[in-house]
Amino acid sequence: MSSSLDLLSQPHHDGSDLYVSNAAPRLGETVTLRVRVPHEADITAVHVRLTPDAEPVFVDAVVESVTDTETWWSAEVVCHNPVTNYRFILEGGPSGYAWLNGTGAHLRDVPDAADFRIVTYAAPPAWAGEAVVYQVFPDRFARSAAADERPTPEWAVPAQWEEPVDLGHDVIAWQLFGGDLDGVVERLDHLEKLGVNTVYLTPFFPARSNHRYDASTFAAVDPVLGGDEALSRLTEAAHARGMRVLGDFTTNHTGAAHEWFAKAQADETSDERGFYLWDEDGDYVAWLGVKSLPKLNYDSAELRRRVFDDADGVVRKWISGEHGLDGWRVDVANMTGRYRDQDHNQDIARQMRAAMAEARPDALLVGEHCHDFTRDAVGDGWHGVMNYAGFTRPVWTWLRDKGYAPKFLGSPLMVPRLGGVSVMETMREFTALVPFRTVQHSFNLVGSHDTTRVRTLVGEDARQVDAAAGLLFTMPGIPMMTYGDEIGMRGDFGEDGRRPMPWDESRWDHRLLDVYRGLIAARTSSVALREGGLRWVHASDDALVYLRQTAAETALVHVARAEHAPVTVSTAHLGGIEGARTAYGRDLAPGEGSMELVADGPEVSIWVWPNP
Amino acid sequence: MSSSLDLLSQPHHDGSDLYVSNAAPRLGETVTLRVRVPHEADITAVHVRLTPDAEPVFVDAVVESVTDTETWWSAEVVCHNPVTNYRFILEGGPSGYAWLNGTGAHLRDVPDAADFRIVTYAAPPAWAGEAVVYQVFPDRFARSAAADERPTPEWAVPAQWEEPVDLGHDVIAWQLFGGDLDGVVERLDHLEKLGVNTVYLTPFFPARSNHRYDASTFAAVDPVLGGDEALSRLTEAAHARGMRVLGDFTTNHTGAAHEWFAKAQADETSDERGFYLWDEDGDYVAWLGVKSLPKLNYDSAELRRRVFDDADGVVRKWISGEHGLDGWRVDVANMTGRYRDQDHNQDIARQMRAAMAEARPDALLVGEHCHDFTRDAVGDGWHGVMNYAGFTRPVWTWLRDKGYAPKFLGSPLMVPRLGGVSVMETMREFTALVPFRTVQHSFNLVGSHDTTRVRTLVGEDARQVDAAAGLLFTMPGIPMMTYGDEIGMRGDFGEDGRRPMPWDESRWDHRLLDVYRGLIAARTSSVALREGGLRWVHASDDALVYLRQTAAETALVHVARAEHAPVTVSTAHLGGIEGARTAYGRDLAPGEGSMELVADGPEVSIWVWPNP
Repeated sequence: MSSSLDLLSQPHHDGSDLYVSNAAPRLGETVTLRVRVPHEADITAVHVRLTPDAEPVFVDAVVESVTDTETWWSAEVVCHNPVTNYRFILEGGPSGYAWLNGTGAHLRDVPDAADFRIVTYAAPPAWAGEAVVYQVFPDRFARSAAADERPTPEWAVPAQWEEPVDLGHDVIAWQLFGGDLDGVVERLDHLEKLGVNTVYLTPFFPARSNHRYDASTFAAVDPVLGGDEALSRLTEAAHARGMRVLGDFTTNHTGAAHEWFAKAQADETSDERGFYLWDEDGDYVAWLGVKSLPKLNYDSAELRRRVFDDADGVVRKWISGEHGLDGWRVDVANMTGRYRDQDHNQDIARQMRAAMAEARPDALLVGEHCHDFTRDAVGDGWHGVMNYAGFTRPVWTWLRDKGYAPKFLGSPLMVPRLGGVSVMETMREFTALVPFRTVQHSFNLVGSHDTTRVRTLVGEDARQVDAAAGLLFTMPGIPMMTYGDEIGMRGDFGEDGRRPMPWDESRWDHRLLDVYRGLIAARTSSVALREGGLRWVHASDDALVYLRQTAAETALVHVARAEHAPVTVSTAHLGGIEGARTAYGRDLAPGEGSMELVADGPEVSIWVWPNP
Repeated sequence: MSSSLDLLSQPHHDGSDLYVSNAAPRLGETVTLRVRVPHEADITAVHVRLTPDAEPVFVDAVVESVTDTETWWSAEVVCHNPVTNYRFILEGGPSGYAWLNGTGAHLRDVPDAADFRIVTYAAPPAWAGEAVVYQVFPDRFARSAAADERPTPEWAVPAQWEEPVDLGHDVIAWQLFGGDLDGVVERLDHLEKLGVNTVYLTPFFPARSNHRYDASTFAAVDPVLGGDEALSRLTEAAHARGMRVLGDFTTNHTGAAHEWFAKAQADETSDERGFYLWDEDGDYVAWLGVKSLPKLNYDSAELRRRVFDDADGVVRKWISGEHGLDGWRVDVANMTGRYRDQDHNQDIARQMRAAMAEARPDALLVGEHCHDFTRDAVGDGWHGVMNYAGFTRPVWTWLRDKGYAPKFLGSPLMVPRLGGVSVMETMREFTALVPFRTVQHSFNLVGSHDTTRVRTLVGEDARQVDAAAGLLFTMPGIPMMTYGDEIGMRGDFGEDGRRPMPWDESRWDHRLLDVYRGLIAARTSSVALREGGLRWVHASDDALVYLRQTAAETALVHVARAEHAPVTVSTAHLGGIEGARTAYGRDLAPGEGSMELVADGPEVSIWVWPNP
């Protein structure tokens, strides 16, 4: 793994249109699969192994074309089941044969878990493939003048925008800065100039906390945020700019002050009683034991009706008509519907997806998964997940300050500092366990309202954030950034990571803002960066180099976390590189048959060229 | 991985009673987990990570005891869900921390797939943990005198016992040698002397082939085999010797001559029509397109009733009353209930298990899985599977003749020849993906009626079979051998592997028979070999060394496929070895603090000692 030549000389396949003729086939349709085999791999025959109805079946591949440097093999396979998992057998080479699956080539038997996958479920909305998401925590992003006129809720402790956050509370937070949805409308210029095109709002339902994950109703937008009309104003303004808006719904729980929960407590014979889980002592089950967050019970058909099926229910109402959200991010998606021997999780994901599709066929559904998402993300329910496990954590292990061991979400788990090979291996292992389409429609993120800020994570050298952002905007997946990351906002895990956005631009890191704008622009300018597969070129302690490729275009990305010895990359397998443009960073200096990639500190470079 | 010292100095945990206080907890119960940490690993703290309701939760472990060589940490965990998956975090060591899961220690994040697992499903029958299974193909094992009196079925081509098998047919075979169930009764002495205690009969239902996987009814035993009474005579005779008898049921399909299928074809309005799958053209779906095997459709509640729920239905009738089978092996379990977008597979496994438990609580249910079984074997349905993927194939890659590339089952897939490290890694990877209880109740096998014979596989040197049998009888799992393997029967994949058993003992390999008897006796004599966890000591091209351990006893196993350089094993972590007895093979020669394991060809040695 230490030599870049080794990686580029490996056979390769991924889920992009360069290798899969149809990424959205219907059940029973035939798809052409291609595999690229460099001549030095010395492969004499290629077969595809499928497992229709869980039985192994083999299809011979044929030579489709031969170039100076490689042979392209292809095979036609039938999508017999909703999930078609497949791998290649390559005959020849040093060991006689090798399996090729999503984690690379293997000289011994490996389980099917990392097989490539094509799914026949309905495709996610096309716009999601172009999305660059900006997470807004409504209380902390921007405050309109109208907010001054609104009464403070009885639970809240009002604060001035410039006041420090109160670090006394990690879960239930009463300090209210009074940001609102009209404040977001007023700042859409900032987002548009940054280049993002999708606003993801953390919850806007009335609640008894500044984070609003403890909704007291799902029937209205919090008046403190401006009410239902403010949401309409925001979606209208965003849509007018070609931007999208996502909401945030807690399928797992409500607040203890929720209207349903009040009825459930008041009347044991009520429908609402069945909406919640009760233990042997008649006490209610709460999210991780936090009593302000009673957990919902999806045994209840009436709950499912009100949440999913009713046209005016939670899920459909807000993505329809005048409110017009473009989709939902689902809070605690991993725990939803799961309790002891009850597990409705995937069933709920599918029901929510189906309900949304009826109300709005182009709505996006992304589930929060702070943990291993791979068993829950085959693509029939959530279109994608928040990819903490396969993106955030490996990036953090690469870039965290040597002297600072950040906590990850609420866990006591330490995050080690590791070299680039571990980053590559971890990313590859997690993403190999789900269909490529799930990877493409999952949120990549280097931080959120639930984590340490990336600027704090990396320590003193702000250019480390460049490296984080370089990965964020060039990897497969939907990049999601948190408000203020682009100006270098700092903050530890908890309330500290949710400071109000400073609108006094003298407090901004303008160099970093240019980095964000430049990287987002690079992504927007390149179909390969948005839709391409991922092919690793090089990984070492301080450098990661990879290709993103579609049938039309190639992007080569070099991200360094520190100065490193030049990385020599053979250009033999990089056809068309002579026509490369610099999409970001240093200009390319290809030599005779190879080139050297250099870095004198944390930095990012991106080169893009049309395929020959 | 190349040094034996490295492996014994690794922290270790497995599913045995040495590390898990209760392998059969009920939902909500607390279990104590222990982990062994050699001092040289330099670990300062240990935590357990659980994922109740799919959310990560951490439990601190405490030091339970400290010896000269290692520290034992323990933690109490609650079995909150039916499947509790867990891993350990070890703080300290060279990298700050490591995860410990079923595939070993990892210095970077890895998905949950290989986490350890405890399940709260009802435990498999106790006798299964002691079982040594002998597979009988009724037409080919033994023929009683009564067989001469029976008419030949119209489909059959009768053959004399000494005649060569007809290699013209691989799937549907008409050559009938006329073995019968009374023949099996007459040969129980042979089995008892061999040491096996469980007879597994391939199908005994009437059919139109010698293998009888194409049943024409499930309501009677084939008269050619002696009919229902012969089965009763066999189970009675076996039970009288303390032996068990398993049947073989094709949940996936019937024969085209089945009485249900006749009704289904004759009457489109019949219940039976719904028992089968029909395509758009009105044609029926068949197993892998083999028209003699129409596939069953478990959408039909009436089919489920007749197969599973009726006291006199297929599954319950034959394990009850006078017939008294001790359980079922399920043919094509992997494909059962799966077709296109229909997937009832796990539901059927659970329904069959529940139906069997009602008829006979101590019945065993093992599913055939010729492929990756890991997603289907959590333990709520099949108690175990046929472990081709995690046992047979790795053993074959180690022992197959250099000049002979056997086909595996019906697939065109080559089986490469690999070194011992690959064998260890493949076994570890597959078994890590299921609960240890599933591993313990799965059939290990080095061949079956569906494969090349092990004697043919290994080539000229019959002592290679010793190595295969050494692994078979000392690894976690239920050893299953095929009739005649113990006397060196040969045969390629297909009919050739199903030759009639020669009862002329001059044609037997008596040396090999002694090896089988000795290894089975060793297993029977050692609780560690039957119930212990697996801890690898050494793997290299030609040698595999491992420990099997329970709380009471340790067994050390050395299997060589060829002469190899002495393997040095430190005895520091092998407390009590000074009290070892030789259970098989060479005597042990422990030196000062270490010992050398030698082999001058393919061989097996086993040493057993009580734990101090």
